[in-house]
Amino acid sequence: MAEYNVRFASHPEPIGVPAGTLLVDAAREASIEVQQPCGGQGRCGRCAVQVDSGAVRRRSVLRLSPADVEAGFALACQTVVEGDVSITVPPPEVIERRLVTDHIAPEAALPDGYDAAESQSIRRVELQLTPPSMDDQTDDWGRLCTALRQATGIEHMETSLEQIRGLGPILRNSDWHVALTFDRGRNGSPRLIRVQPAAEALEAPLCGLAIDVGTTTVSVWLVDLLTGNVTRQASQYNQQIARGEDVISRIIYASKGDGGSELRDLVVGTINEMVDTMCARAKIEPADIVKATVSGNSTMMHLLLGIPPESIRLEPFITPINHLPRVPASEVGIAMNRDGVVDPLPGVASYVGADITAGVFASGLRESPDTTLFIDVGTNGEIVFGSSEWMVTCACSAGPAFEGAGVIHGMRANTGAIEEVWIDGSTHEPSLRVIGNAAPRGICGSGLIALIAEMFLTGVLDKAGNINQTLETPRVRRGLHGAEYVVAWAEEAEGNEDIVITRVDIDNLLRAKAAIYAGFKVLADRVGVPLEMAEHVLIGGSFGKYINVEKAIDIGLLPDMAWDRFEFLGNTSVKGAYLALIDQAVRDEIASIASDMTYIELSADNSFYEAFTSALFLPHTDLSLFPSVEAAMT
Amino acid sequence: MAEYNVRFASHPEPIGVPAGTLLVDAAREASIEVQQPCGGQGRCGRCAVQVDSGAVRRRSVLRLSPADVEAGFALACQTVVEGDVSITVPPPEVIERRLVTDHIAPEAALPDGYDAAESQSIRRVELQLTPPSMDDQTDDWGRLCTALRQATGIEHMETSLEQIRGLGPILRNSDWHVALTFDRGRNGSPRLIRVQPAAEALEAPLCGLAIDVGTTTVSVWLVDLLTGNVTRQASQYNQQIARGEDVISRIIYASKGDGGSELRDLVVGTINEMVDTMCARAKIEPADIVKATVSGNSTMMHLLLGIPPESIRLEPFITPINHLPRVPASEVGIAMNRDGVVDPLPGVASYVGADITAGVFASGLRESPDTTLFIDVGTNGEIVFGSSEWMVTCACSAGPAFEGAGVIHGMRANTGAIEEVWIDGSTHEPSLRVIGNAAPRGICGSGLIALIAEMFLTGVLDKAGNINQTLETPRVRRGLHGAEYVVAWAEEAEGNEDIVITRVDIDNLLRAKAAIYAGFKVLADRVGVPLEMAEHVLIGGSFGKYINVEKAIDIGLLPDMAWDRFEFLGNTSVKGAYLALIDQAVRDEIASIASDMTYIELSADNSFYEAFTSALFLPHTDLSLFPSVEAAMT
Repeated sequence: MAEYNVRFASHPEPIGVPAGTLLVDAAREASIEVQQPCGGQGRCGRCAVQVDSGAVRRRSVLRLSPADVEAGFALACQTVVEGDVSITVPPPEVIERRLVTDHIAPEAALPDGYDAAESQSIRRVELQLTPPSMDDQTDDWGRLCTALRQATGIEHMETSLEQIRGLGPILRNSDWHVALTFDRGRNGSPRLIRVQPAAEALEAPLCGLAIDVGTTTVSVWLVDLLTGNVTRQASQYNQQIARGEDVISRIIYASKGDGGSELRDLVVGTINEMVDTMCARAKIEPADIVKATVSGNSTMMHLLLGIPPESIRLEPFITPINHLPRVPASEVGIAMNRDGVVDPLPGVASYVGADITAGVFASGLRESPDTTLFIDVGTNGEIVFGSSEWMVTCACSAGPAFEGAGVIHGMRANTGAIEEVWIDGSTHEPSLRVIGNAAPRGICGSGLIALIAEMFLTGVLDKAGNINQTLETPRVRRGLHGAEYVVAWAEEAEGNEDIVITRVDIDNLLRAKAAIYAGFKVLADRVGVPLEMAEHVLIGGSFGKYINVEKAIDIGLLPDMAWDRFEFLGNTSVKGAYLALIDQAVRDEIASIASDMTYIELSADNSFYEAFTSALFLPHTDLSLFPSVEAAMT
Repeated sequence: MAEYNVRFASHPEPIGVPAGTLLVDAAREASIEVQQPCGGQGRCGRCAVQVDSGAVRRRSVLRLSPADVEAGFALACQTVVEGDVSITVPPPEVIERRLVTDHIAPEAALPDGYDAAESQSIRRVELQLTPPSMDDQTDDWGRLCTALRQATGIEHMETSLEQIRGLGPILRNSDWHVALTFDRGRNGSPRLIRVQPAAEALEAPLCGLAIDVGTTTVSVWLVDLLTGNVTRQASQYNQQIARGEDVISRIIYASKGDGGSELRDLVVGTINEMVDTMCARAKIEPADIVKATVSGNSTMMHLLLGIPPESIRLEPFITPINHLPRVPASEVGIAMNRDGVVDPLPGVASYVGADITAGVFASGLRESPDTTLFIDVGTNGEIVFGSSEWMVTCACSAGPAFEGAGVIHGMRANTGAIEEVWIDGSTHEPSLRVIGNAAPRGICGSGLIALIAEMFLTGVLDKAGNINQTLETPRVRRGLHGAEYVVAWAEEAEGNEDIVITRVDIDNLLRAKAAIYAGFKVLADRVGVPLEMAEHVLIGGSFGKYINVEKAIDIGLLPDMAWDRFEFLGNTSVKGAYLALIDQAVRDEIASIASDMTYIELSADNSFYEAFTSALFLPHTDLSLFPSVEAAMT
C-alpha cells in the first residue's frame, strides 16, 4: 500500500503513513492533540483541521459549512490521507468561536413591559455602612445586616462561610461602601452571593445563564440581569452523546462504575466550554455570573446534578426527585460565581421533565383559556393538552426515528440532508430540497415526513405502509432489506451509493408517528375533550421548527386541523429557563405548572395499545379523523 | 564528649549519639516517628516513650504522672541520653488513651426533668412509605416528604444534593421503610442529615458533640442524643499553642501567609484526634455524630471556621461575625457525619465570646433574679455582672500572669507546681503544698495568689507591692531582677536553682489583678449597682477551680464578700455548649444572652484607668472596700 507524508504546521518532521490513514491517527503519531469530544464519531465538529495542500477524502463533513470545506477544513476523525498533505491544526478557540453566536434569535426578546428590578430574584444593593468605632463595636456581619435591613427591610440573610471569610477586608478596603448581590430565594431567606466595593460594582456586569440540557444539544443563553436582555446564545452537542444516543443508554452507562460522574463531567464540560467562550467574548468574569436556571428532561437534570437516574428506566419509572432544590454553583461545577445560585426547574415525571414545564410556560398555554395542544418532539415526544384551567401530559416513546436514527439513510438536519420531497404522481420521480443546496447525503426528519406523505399520496405506499412493487418505475425495487424506494441515485448523491428508504425504515417511522398520535388520543379521551377542540397546536423543540404541517397531517403524525392553528416555537425549554431566570413570578408559575399537570403513564393505560395500533396506518385506521387527507386521496 | 548507643525496640541497629542528645533527635536518626503536636515544647505529653533500660535525664515530666515516670515513661522532647539506653516508642493510641476519660464529671449530669424528644433540635423519625407503582409515580423525594408531612406535619425540608444522590437505593433496599434524621433548625426549615434503612437505624447510635475551643485547652464531650447523656469526655492542649500562647499572637500568626489555614488545621486536628479516639472507644462511627455545638472565645471561633480574625486585635477591635451561621460539618472538617450540623454559639464582642455566653447560661445567672457576678479567668479575664433582668460585660486584658506566664518561676498547674503557700509571720519561712506531692518546680496561679497574700499579710510586701528588704531573713535578698523572696531553696526544688518571686513578677501579678478588679468596678459603676450587692460570685474556667477565695480577696483580686457567696463552676463554656446541644430552647436562650448583654469596651472607658491604678495596691487604695482584709492586717 502507498505511503504518504503528512506535514503538520506545528511539527518539524513529516509523518509517514499508509494511504487511507485518518488524520486523527496521523496527528496522534506526531503527538499533536486534536479534540474529539464526540469520541471520533464525526458528530461534534471539534476536530476540524485545515488541509493546506494535498489529497484527502472527507467521509463526512457534518458540522462544516460548504464555505468551511471550500476553505480547506476537514474533520480529522472522518478524513483520510490520499496523498502527501500539509495540515494546520487550528487553536481550539478558532473552532469553538463558530459555535457561539452574537446574533440573538427573535424569540429571546424581552417580554413586553418587563421591569428587571421588580421581577428578578437577584438584587444588587448599594450600602454605605457607618464605620465601627470604640463606641460602636458591632461585628462586621451584624453591621452589614443592619444596613441591609434599613435599606430594604430584609430581616435575615443566609450566607456561606466563604462570604464571611472575605467580608472584613472588603468592608475596610472600600471605606465601608459596598454593593451586595443576593438572591431573594423562593421560600426561605435571601442568600448572599457577593459583596463588592461599591465603586467596583458600579462598573461590574451582573449576569445570568439560562441553560437547556438536551439529550442531543445543550443550549446556553447569557443574560444581562441589569436589563434582562439576552446578550449571547450558544448551542453545542451534548458531549455525553459519545456515551449513548438516547436517555436509556445514558442511564445504563451511568449505572456502571464511574459512569455517572463521567457523564456529569461531560455535560458540565459542555456547558462550561460555551460559558468560557461567552465570557471571553462578552469580556466578563465567571464571577459576574450569579445565577443559572436549568431545564432539560428528567434524565439530563439528574445526570447534571450527579443523582443516579437508574430508577427512571425501571418499572414503575420513578424519578429520584422532580422538584430539585436550588444549589450553590460550586456544588454543580458550572463556571460561574461559586456562591451563585443554580436553580434547576421542576419536572413532572420520569419522561416529562423541566424542559416540558418550562416549555409549557414559554408556549403561553398556561396563560390562555383556549384549549391547546403542546408538543415537543425530540428524541422522545412529550405532549401536553390543556389550558389555563387544566393540563394533562404524557410521554410517547417515539424513539429517535424522526432524528434520523433507525432509518438506513436517516441523518440529522445538517448540510446534505434532504429536507423536503415532492413526488410526481405519474412518473413517481422525486424532486428534492437539500440543506445547504449540497449533494444529498441522507434524509432528515422533515424530509422523512415529506417523503412518506408523498409516497402515500402518489400510491407508492398503501395505507399499511407497504411499497407498491407493481409500479412501473426503477425507483421501486427489492434491496437487501426488502422492498425499497430510491430517493436519490448514487451519481447525484455525495456518497457512492443510492439513497433509499426501505420497508423497515417505513415501519420504524410509522411506529414513531403512531406512538405520538396515540398519545394525543389517550390524553384527549382521558379528559373527554376531542382533539379537534384544540384551538392551537404549539410545537416546541428544534425538530418541530422545520416540519411541513400539511405533510405531517398527511401521514397522521399531527391531527387534521386548519394550518393556522399550528405554531412553531423553537426551543421552548431554554426560553422558559430564560423567562424563569429574569422573573421570579415565572419561576413560581413553572413550579405550579409542574404540580398541576396530571401525568398519564401510557404504558399503564389500557387504551394506549389500541390507539397505537389504529394509528399504525396511513394516515389512520379511522379515515374520518383525517378529512383533509381523505379529500387529497380521492 | 562521650558517645552512647540508643536502641529502639522497632529498629534493628542501635544509633550512636553524643551524651546529652534528646531522645526525639535519636529517634529521628533512626527514622522513627515520634508525635510532637506541641512542637517539642514539653507541653502536650504526646511524645511519651518508654525507657526500658539505661540512663536518661528528664528535664520535664509535665503531663506524666509519678506512676508513669515510675513505669519508665519519659517525654522524648525533654529527655536526654546519659548512657546506653533501650527505648520503646508506644503506638499513639496508648498515649492518647490517657487523654480521653470514661469517667464523667458530675457537672455533666442531665438537667432535671429533661425530655430528649421534646427538647432537641435533632429528630429521628421512622417512616413506612407506600412503594411506588404504575398508578402512583410520585418521585422518591416527594414520596419521602409526603410521608414526613403525614407523620410530623413538617411541610418543607432542606437537603444537600448528597442526600438526594443516595436516596433511591436506600429506599429500595429497605423496602421503603426508613429512618430520617434531621435538624429542626432555628429560623428556617428543618434540614435532612441522614436517611437510613429503619432496621439499621434501630440499632444505630445517635450522637452529638459539645466542643469548647479554649486558647490553651480544647474540651470535647460526646453525647448520646437518644438520652441526652454525656458518654465520653476529653480534653487536650490546643495544638495551636506551638504557634503562639495567647489570642493576640495567634491572630498575628493567622494574618501571615497560610497561617490562618495552618491554625485551622491544627485546631480541627486537635478536635478530631479526640473524636476519633472517642468513636473507637464508644464503638460508633463518625457518621453517627450528627450535630456539634461549639463554644470558645471569639478568636478561637473565627480560627476554627477559617474566618480571618485580624480586625479583632486592631482598634476599634471588631469581630467579623458574632452570630455565626450553622454550617454543614463537611465545611468545618470535624470528623462527623458530613451532612451533620455544626452550630457555633454566638459571641458578644471581640473579647467576650461564645465561651462567655454559654458560660453565663451554664452558670444559671440568666435564670436568677439575684444580682450575680460571673467571672471566667483564663488567659484573659471576662466578667459579666447582672441578673435575669440585665447584664453588662467586659473583658480585662489581665494577661496570662495567673497561668504562670510573665512570672520567672511561674508554671501551669501540673505536677511540681506550688499551689498553696503559708508564711510564718515571725520567721517569714514558707510552708508549701505542691501538686503531686513532688519536689517543687515552679508556682502555678493559685500558688502565686496565696504567695502574694501571705507575703502581704506577714509584712514581706507593703501595700504598693514593694519587698521589705529590712527583714531579718535570708529569704529576702537582691537578685538579678532586683529584690526577691526565695520560695524554695535549690536543694528542696527539682531544678538546680532557688525558686523565687521577684519585684518584677509581683508587678505583673498586681497589674493582672488590678485589671480584673477594675473591670468589676467599671461594670458596677456603669449600672449603678454596688459590687457588694452581688449575691453570688460564680467562677468559671479551670483556673478558678483551684484558687483560694480568702487569699484572692486578700490581694484584692476578688471583691470582699462572705465566702459562701462564691461558687466554682469548672468549665462553664463546654457545659453551656452541652446544654445547647441537647436543648433547642437553651440554644435560643444563649442567642438572647448574646444579644441582651451590654458590652463595655474598657479601653474606651474614661473611668477604667483610674479604677485600674487604684487597684494596683494591696488589696486596694480604698481599704474600706476590703474590710475583712483590713481586719486581718491589724
